[in-house]
Amino acid sequence: MALLVLKFGGTSVGTIERIEAVADKVAGFRAAGDDIVVVLSAMSGETNRLTDLAQQIMDYPTPREMDVLLSTGEQVTIALLSMALEKRGVPARSFTGNQVQIRTCETHTKARIREIDGTRISAQLQQGNVVVVAGFQGVDEHGNITTLGRGGSDTTAVALAAALDADECQIYTDVKGVYTTDPRVVEDAKLLDSITFEEMLELASLGAKVLQIRAVEFAGKYKVPLRVLSSFEEGAGTLISLEGESKMEDPTIAGIAFQRDEAKLTVAGIPDIPGIAYQVIGPVSAAGIEVDVIVQNAAADGNNDITFTVKRSDSERAKKILDDLSPSLKAESVSLDKKIGKVSVVGVGMKSHAGIASKMFKALADENINIQIITTSEIKISIVIDEKYLELAVRALHSAFDLGDPDYERESIT
Amino acid sequence: MALLVLKFGGTSVGTIERIEAVADKVAGFRAAGDDIVVVLSAMSGETNRLTDLAQQIMDYPTPREMDVLLSTGEQVTIALLSMALEKRGVPARSFTGNQVQIRTCETHTKARIREIDGTRISAQLQQGNVVVVAGFQGVDEHGNITTLGRGGSDTTAVALAAALDADECQIYTDVKGVYTTDPRVVEDAKLLDSITFEEMLELASLGAKVLQIRAVEFAGKYKVPLRVLSSFEEGAGTLISLEGESKMEDPTIAGIAFQRDEAKLTVAGIPDIPGIAYQVIGPVSAAGIEVDVIVQNAAADGNNDITFTVKRSDSERAKKILDDLSPSLKAESVSLDKKIGKVSVVGVGMKSHAGIASKMFKALADENINIQIITTSEIKISIVIDEKYLELAVRALHSAFDLGDPDYERESIT
Repeated sequence: MALLVLKFGGTSVGTIERIEAVADKVAGFRAAGDDIVVVLSAMSGETNRLTDLAQQIMDYPTPREMDVLLSTGEQVTIALLSMALEKRGVPARSFTGNQVQIRTCETHTKARIREIDGTRISAQLQQGNVVVVAGFQGVDEHGNITTLGRGGSDTTAVALAAALDADECQIYTDVKGVYTTDPRVVEDAKLLDSITFEEMLELASLGAKVLQIRAVEFAGKYKVPLRVLSSFEEGAGTLISLEGESKMEDPTIAGIAFQRDEAKLTVAGIPDIPGIAYQVIGPVSAAGIEVDVIVQNAAADGNNDITFTVKRSDSERAKKILDDLSPSLKAESVSLDKKIGKVSVVGVGMKSHAGIASKMFKALADENINIQIITTSEIKISIVIDEKYLELAVRALHSAFDLGDPDYERESIT
Repeated sequence: MALLVLKFGGTSVGTIERIEAVADKVAGFRAAGDDIVVVLSAMSGETNRLTDLAQQIMDYPTPREMDVLLSTGEQVTIALLSMALEKRGVPARSFTGNQVQIRTCETHTKARIREIDGTRISAQLQQGNVVVVAGFQGVDEHGNITTLGRGGSDTTAVALAAALDADECQIYTDVKGVYTTDPRVVEDAKLLDSITFEEMLELASLGAKVLQIRAVEFAGKYKVPLRVLSSFEEGAGTLISLEGESKMEDPTIAGIAFQRDEAKLTVAGIPDIPGIAYQVIGPVSAAGIEVDVIVQNAAADGNNDITFTVKRSDSERAKKILDDLSPSLKAESVSLDKKIGKVSVVGVGMKSHAGIASKMFKALADENINIQIITTSEIKISIVIDEKYLELAVRALHSAFDLGDPDYERESIT
């Protein structure tokens, strides 16, 4: 008998029919003898409907009241699922974030969980009830309703699993799990049986948007076994585990992540002096622009270029800031390239394997793809290239690292 | 500077425009220097929408979960009104029933308020905030969400006014206040400046559905001055007050109430023995049928008739019960009359004035209306008549007791 925390997103509870399907699934686990805690998001579309009501009143609704408003969305789904379970003869009780005391900081609309007292939930489980908890919401120390921000329900599920020392936290989504890369780009992309937390973090932050980064961080920190799987299709999905627990046979590379919609800014010919990077990046960051890759390469002649990437939508604003700064930086030039893409090879095995970088660069060279920027971390290597080669690079790397699904049958090989 | 509790119903907050109008009204009170607590219902239609979702799952949804579901309705409106107030520069904070600890019994979907701790609200008022509270909902001693049943928001408002020792509780509705009778039946029906709690109770329970009976009882018990007035039109409405506080100059009769959709059942020729009334009424009541008027008139010959009224929709079921009982009761006959109506003359002044009954009976006799049943209480006299004379009787009595609005101008007197 296991204790499982199951999380279902908005699409999975988007209609009464789908809520009934979730109830069937939960009832199945119960029949197998497991203790179940379910975490739910709002019905898909509901958060938008509520936000729209608020914005009819004001463009920037009061954050505290926004949380009171939005938290009703999950409260509706937990009640409906509990009813659907009761209909199946499965005793169930729903609880809001406040009721199970998911304590957060006071930052409305993007609060962080501080602690969860699992005693109320444990007592309910011992009474034989399925416990259905509203995701995405909590309560601050003054009793105000808070919400956790985008994807917060994943975080709720992981935090509950940690607090209850659950055997597994299962995140049900509309994909079958984590793939070696985007199946829309590489047709034989392979569903991974398992992946480490670190790899998942790199893949998630690089655009493989299966799970919220915060939830993965949380799971890693509290060592909660996390599984991503589909609400709609059968399958065991992908287990996100501690490195030592990985069932994979020494995998070198877990997957290929990529990101479009980036832009590259270069400040060229600035002096190679202490503090110069801060003088360039500081004002951009202060303007609320998120900076992704940063590289600096000081030449021997004392001249210096700093290049960084930002979201394409922020790039004109960043350019303006740099142009204004240019005289005081004594920069030779500021340039903007909006046609770039980023590709990353991610794998915890990289730490102990030489030759990944050279294999990567060779694969790209074979396709005549010019690399504009290279950055590396312990478990990933990222490159920035001309956007038009993005898909080609992903396919070339996927193939070079033998990530393809051997069971995949190409429909028409020409 | 007064402390006012203002309650707005579903129609008054049914659209964003109307919520903005409520915010204008509240901002006006604030500008006049009053401390304000607002109690809101769900947007009109929302409760039906949520109930419909639940009933797609089960015909009789789990009461506990129904409360979790329905309580979201008010939570939406309190957030939206608080935003609308903030937009006007009026600091406002919304609170659910749980947050301000409106403690109730455990009877889901029709819980009763046990106590309210006003400290959190008082602290907010002292900080200069308008406090916006979700009506209709509370929390039981185990922290479960409860709802108060139909019209529960009125009760919330009155209970809060009592707990906070408010100067007045104002219930905003879609009528201008309490009239001497239904203006749709008697065109010169007069808006009452004030009415006593007892009169209001009799009028409300007899069909003048302006306020929930429970709220009036609560207000009477805790001596909360209660005012009914329109959300949409100007005017001071009707003050519901303790008898001694009434501003009316010794009013004999406050109004004429009436009720359609009743049916009359008579069990004739039963023995005049102790316990016989219970043998008749007990089984009907046990079947969940609400019994209204009951009269018994034992004849000198030892034979006995019991007559009572029920809702017309329950009448066939009640008849069946009585038919089955008839042999054991040794009844001569059981009869059902579905075409009756009830008219009541209500007035606290009745207690000290003779002649009300005779004036009432004369007015009906003048119109040739036959009285089938008469019952009396301290402050009302009710009669049951053939339904087709209902409007005629109401108009005749309204006129006989001089209740007409002297300022009313008849548009076309023939």
